[in-house]
Amino acid sequence: MQIASALQWIIPVAGITAILFALYLARDVLSRDKGTKAMQDVADTILEGAVAFIRRQYTTIALLALGAAVIIGLVIGVVETAEVADTDVFGLQLGLMTGVAFLVGAACSMASGIIGMYISVKSNVRTASAAQRSLVEAVQVAMRGGAVSGFLVVALSLLGVWGIFVAYGGTTNPAIAPFLIVGFGFGASFVALFAQLGGGIYTKAADVGADLVGKVEAGIPEDDPRNAGVIADLVGDNVGDCAGRGADLFESTAAENIGAMILGVAVYTIALTSGWPNPEAWIFFPLIIRAFGLLATIVSIYFVRGREDEDPMNMLNRGYWVVTALSAVALAFVTSQTMNTGTQTGTNGIAPWVFFFGCGLIGLATSIVFVYITQYYTAGSWRPVKEIAEASKTGPATNIISGVAVGFETTFATAIAIAIALLASNWLGSQAGLVNAAGDNVGGIFGTAVATMGMLMTTAYILAMDTFGPITDNAGGITEFSRASEGARKITDRLDAVGNTTKALTKGYAIASASLAAFLLFSAYIDKVNLIIDRQILAGVREAGTRLESIDLAEVPVFVAAFIGAMLVYFFSSLAIRAVGTTAQAIIVEVRRQFREMPGIMDYSQRPDYARVVDITTQAALKQMILPGMVAVATPVIVGVLLGAQAIAGFLMVATIAGVLLATVLNNSGGAWDNAKKYIEAGHLKDDQGTVLGKKTDAHAAAVVGDTVGDPFKDTAGPSLHVLVKLLATITLVLAPLFIR
Amino acid sequence: MQIASALQWIIPVAGITAILFALYLARDVLSRDKGTKAMQDVADTILEGAVAFIRRQYTTIALLALGAAVIIGLVIGVVETAEVADTDVFGLQLGLMTGVAFLVGAACSMASGIIGMYISVKSNVRTASAAQRSLVEAVQVAMRGGAVSGFLVVALSLLGVWGIFVAYGGTTNPAIAPFLIVGFGFGASFVALFAQLGGGIYTKAADVGADLVGKVEAGIPEDDPRNAGVIADLVGDNVGDCAGRGADLFESTAAENIGAMILGVAVYTIALTSGWPNPEAWIFFPLIIRAFGLLATIVSIYFVRGREDEDPMNMLNRGYWVVTALSAVALAFVTSQTMNTGTQTGTNGIAPWVFFFGCGLIGLATSIVFVYITQYYTAGSWRPVKEIAEASKTGPATNIISGVAVGFETTFATAIAIAIALLASNWLGSQAGLVNAAGDNVGGIFGTAVATMGMLMTTAYILAMDTFGPITDNAGGITEFSRASEGARKITDRLDAVGNTTKALTKGYAIASASLAAFLLFSAYIDKVNLIIDRQILAGVREAGTRLESIDLAEVPVFVAAFIGAMLVYFFSSLAIRAVGTTAQAIIVEVRRQFREMPGIMDYSQRPDYARVVDITTQAALKQMILPGMVAVATPVIVGVLLGAQAIAGFLMVATIAGVLLATVLNNSGGAWDNAKKYIEAGHLKDDQGTVLGKKTDAHAAAVVGDTVGDPFKDTAGPSLHVLVKLLATITLVLAPLFIR
Repeated sequence: MQIASALQWIIPVAGITAILFALYLARDVLSRDKGTKAMQDVADTILEGAVAFIRRQYTTIALLALGAAVIIGLVIGVVETAEVADTDVFGLQLGLMTGVAFLVGAACSMASGIIGMYISVKSNVRTASAAQRSLVEAVQVAMRGGAVSGFLVVALSLLGVWGIFVAYGGTTNPAIAPFLIVGFGFGASFVALFAQLGGGIYTKAADVGADLVGKVEAGIPEDDPRNAGVIADLVGDNVGDCAGRGADLFESTAAENIGAMILGVAVYTIALTSGWPNPEAWIFFPLIIRAFGLLATIVSIYFVRGREDEDPMNMLNRGYWVVTALSAVALAFVTSQTMNTGTQTGTNGIAPWVFFFGCGLIGLATSIVFVYITQYYTAGSWRPVKEIAEASKTGPATNIISGVAVGFETTFATAIAIAIALLASNWLGSQAGLVNAAGDNVGGIFGTAVATMGMLMTTAYILAMDTFGPITDNAGGITEFSRASEGARKITDRLDAVGNTTKALTKGYAIASASLAAFLLFSAYIDKVNLIIDRQILAGVREAGTRLESIDLAEVPVFVAAFIGAMLVYFFSSLAIRAVGTTAQAIIVEVRRQFREMPGIMDYSQRPDYARVVDITTQAALKQMILPGMVAVATPVIVGVLLGAQAIAGFLMVATIAGVLLATVLNNSGGAWDNAKKYIEAGHLKDDQGTVLGKKTDAHAAAVVGDTVGDPFKDTAGPSLHVLVKLLATITLVLAPLFIR
Repeated sequence: MQIASALQWIIPVAGITAILFALYLARDVLSRDKGTKAMQDVADTILEGAVAFIRRQYTTIALLALGAAVIIGLVIGVVETAEVADTDVFGLQLGLMTGVAFLVGAACSMASGIIGMYISVKSNVRTASAAQRSLVEAVQVAMRGGAVSGFLVVALSLLGVWGIFVAYGGTTNPAIAPFLIVGFGFGASFVALFAQLGGGIYTKAADVGADLVGKVEAGIPEDDPRNAGVIADLVGDNVGDCAGRGADLFESTAAENIGAMILGVAVYTIALTSGWPNPEAWIFFPLIIRAFGLLATIVSIYFVRGREDEDPMNMLNRGYWVVTALSAVALAFVTSQTMNTGTQTGTNGIAPWVFFFGCGLIGLATSIVFVYITQYYTAGSWRPVKEIAEASKTGPATNIISGVAVGFETTFATAIAIAIALLASNWLGSQAGLVNAAGDNVGGIFGTAVATMGMLMTTAYILAMDTFGPITDNAGGITEFSRASEGARKITDRLDAVGNTTKALTKGYAIASASLAAFLLFSAYIDKVNLIIDRQILAGVREAGTRLESIDLAEVPVFVAAFIGAMLVYFFSSLAIRAVGTTAQAIIVEVRRQFREMPGIMDYSQRPDYARVVDITTQAALKQMILPGMVAVATPVIVGVLLGAQAIAGFLMVATIAGVLLATVLNNSGGAWDNAKKYIEAGHLKDDQGTVLGKKTDAHAAAVVGDTVGDPFKDTAGPSLHVLVKLLATITLVLAPLFIR
């Protein structure tokens, strides 16, 4: 009992420890050697571009967020006042609280994105410098630079949710406070959507635009310094992969924390009536688990080490297995200590915490499964990538057809893994014997929530591995640009290949966590709607017996809303993909102008105007992110207002399913195309006579087409879909009062 | 009252009239001039190949269907015996009836496919011959040849459903008989699935394989007689487009007839208790409507005429507007005569039939809307195709990206149109005042059923237009092969372009009807499950109050089943697309062998072995259709047995949504790529200096890549998805007893 009470304090302690540790890592990275003058020059140009983009992007996002906060506050204030005038927290006060929570969530997300990206950009040149000396040192610099992002994202999300929960009366009224902080999750989603969209459009437009105008039109090599678009490409890796994915996972952890706390309220009520000790521990549980995940990650960073001749992926995997093992131990400790049900037991006389410990393990296992599914489909050593490489022999058309077939196929393993995780954790949870006063077993849904928590315990580590990707990618670019030694280039090439894998893994992880988190938020939404309905019934403004008992797909409005939800996923992706094309055009026009008006560029006597391309790309990408972003925000509001609270839940569920599957298709086909190209470049493809079909062959040209097609799939539309799915969930959760009739 | 009774006899009368009319049209077509000796030679080779494929394919399908019928009969027999032993029709008797209905459905579908395709193949040479004389005559020959298919498909489906309904006691016990004939729909779906899969794989494998080995490898032109794969390509147009789409729409009309009759039972019960005259008319209504649709189509065929200098599409449109207008009139007549509710009125004192007449009009309007949506997205004169053509300037990658963006975008208009049709017909129907004893308003769902019927009134005409496509396509090929006059070639080129449009339109129509029909069948499924549950409750083997009241997406098994349903759509498409690649490989290997071992082919001194390529393609395509077919049949059975009757309904609904949207993406992106290529070939694309970028430019080469990618999308995976969606609906409807716990 005492331990359970004390455990709550682990939340701020772990959060602050993680931030301090991130600062320590940042100092460590910054103190390393910055490399040659040539390296620093390139790095400074990248930093300048990234900072310029981030400044402008986050100013835009901040303005949008401010506007959204005011609108949300007013809407909630007016709707709730109109419907019930008789609760503890209501009307304009609730509107104000929601608006403030939204802004705090948005601010935390922006802060972790900005700082994390800043350190990442600083890490790339130091990784390049370290690569001149040692592989292990280069891995460590890149991983520590990435870990700064990882820790900041998770710690700020934890402290933010906890802080606002306490500020909104969580210690005195824990059953109501979780519902008051949903604005925080919405704020985080809102920022994540625009950060991912803007960054994703920027990075791929720069990539495609620079290639088309340089390689195709001017006939100069890829990554040639004469091409002003190339620096924009390197900047893009940072703003898309670092800042974008950071915001994505910030949102995942924040939304999941809040959703799980809302579901915890149902168990809290049972605990209260059953007289179990520490009922509020059921509500704090998600935050405690997350705190232990952070501590486990701190330890694991020290296991990223190895021999000079070792595969760098092994070093990263070593740390991943450590954080997973420690998380499992922490899970056992926390569940056994906080889930105190007195003498009550579940099925077969087993203590309830044991079932939930099992659910948490399912979550941890799911994240491992996803890591391996993604590897199978996108790494060069397995059937799918080989199949695409073989298909390249007969030209770009068969390469594309084969890649689409592989992308579609990947949904199978994804869906089955998620299905098993949900069914198993739901079943295990339902055995814990958590039955409420109405006779409903709430353990199943809570079990799925615990599985999500288990899965997300390793987020900080996964995010560090993800950010490792752009850092090493940039380190490679800097090494090449500055004409560094052959040995250093070999090391950065190896790191870059590993970085490609870790980036792909993170997307798999982000998808799986998005689907579990969405199911959680969906359940939380139903709880919230019924809380409001109950209050309205109590206040006499609504008939009894009108609770939202089911989301009935057989009702026409629910089916129609579900249909529109699935459609939104395609329509949004279409807008995102098209935005890349439009932005790339802007780059092409500018680089063409430079080639024309600055004739000295071609003979290296004139330096291209890098800053101007970066600036133009920035403006175009930010302009292009507005339409898909607005469609994503407006559609659920319109559907919810027109078709009601039940229909919007159907919309949310089916949009989640459709979004997760389409993101899987886009991410994995893109990853597989990319690696099919690398497979051919590495000389693994042979014709019937056994001759190697490498670079400059038709097969390679076909594979390049596939790679280019995959770019906006895997780096713009796919990742934006993860964010979309969670945004839809938080938007409906926050605006629920608007949809109830 | 008298009219309503008499109207039932219109069903066999219209059915037989339509068949006689089809025979008359067939005789008319067959009596036309067969053209030159050279033309007849090519046509005979095509006929030979098509007959060989169809014989082998339908033998395989017949065997599969026989096996399936036995299994279904036994399963239904055993399950129903085990659960209830106390009804009018039960156990092995019900199993036998279901198995027989399945076989009759399968046989009718096969018969209409075989005869229709036979006449189509006979029509192509006569169209080619007519094109030497007159455009109008060529249009009429092709349209009449296509109409044979159209009439047979709709008439056999109508007579089949009516015959088996009467045979199973429909005249004495109309409230039970609709549930006994569901096997007919399943049989039709089963045949359609394999017909569409086998035909779709054959046609696109031949197309892709012949191109790759001829154009790419041997460097000879497309459609060159030296390439043995080219005849397989021409055969493919017939077996894929004619037989496949015929089976697809046979299934739509059959399944929709049965589903609507099941929903009619609910109104019949109300009519009985309210003492309305002719209660059984509510059950016969769908068949009467279909009968009038057939009669309207017969009249409209005579309006396919025009001037020699007219756009052939106008001639076809003229007939379409006639059948639509006549259908609207028939709808008013039939609803006013059969929906006799005595003195009872709906909202505002309006007679109930008026509301349902409105629902039928919504259906007719929806089909017009879909015709125009498809035109906008796939015809060369609008923004989407132009956009893709422009993107071809920067290479195949941007062509593909742009096509995918367009494909994704088309889901928007599709989903909104379906949403409006469902919401509007549901709302209108609910105003009719059809409230049952339990107080439920059943008019809404019945309204959506009437909208579907309205939509499907024009099926025979649409199908005739669709078959017009492959006939004119083949006529063009024959004209070219036989080196006919320039004038004839101009006419067949114009007809071919129109045929491409009509083929695309039919797919849009098939998708829209599939989604409406699926919703209908889904509602019928719930009715059937509750019929069984009620019987079990009555028999005392089940607790009262356990009816299936909602399909609750918030329950984990329902959500998981829905997830798997959406995944199946991708996985099935992946298998279908991959099957095209594998089959194409078989063709490539054989044509390579012929080039190698028969050196006389290249200088025209040796005739290539066309028959062998056709035979090899046939074998490979039939082998490749088994796996996706089995996955489609097995998945719903496994999910239903494991997760239960509620979950499988969620599976069905979400698979329908996902399938309709993915089919939309695949069909429309494929159509748009095809027409972007044609747009460039027609010389509409210009560079910045105003120079035309036509054939043999890089832009054209890029557009060819897009066209090839689109082939398996729009002609294999997309159309197979329509069938899949309906198969899932009929399978769950038939096997419902297996899923109830």
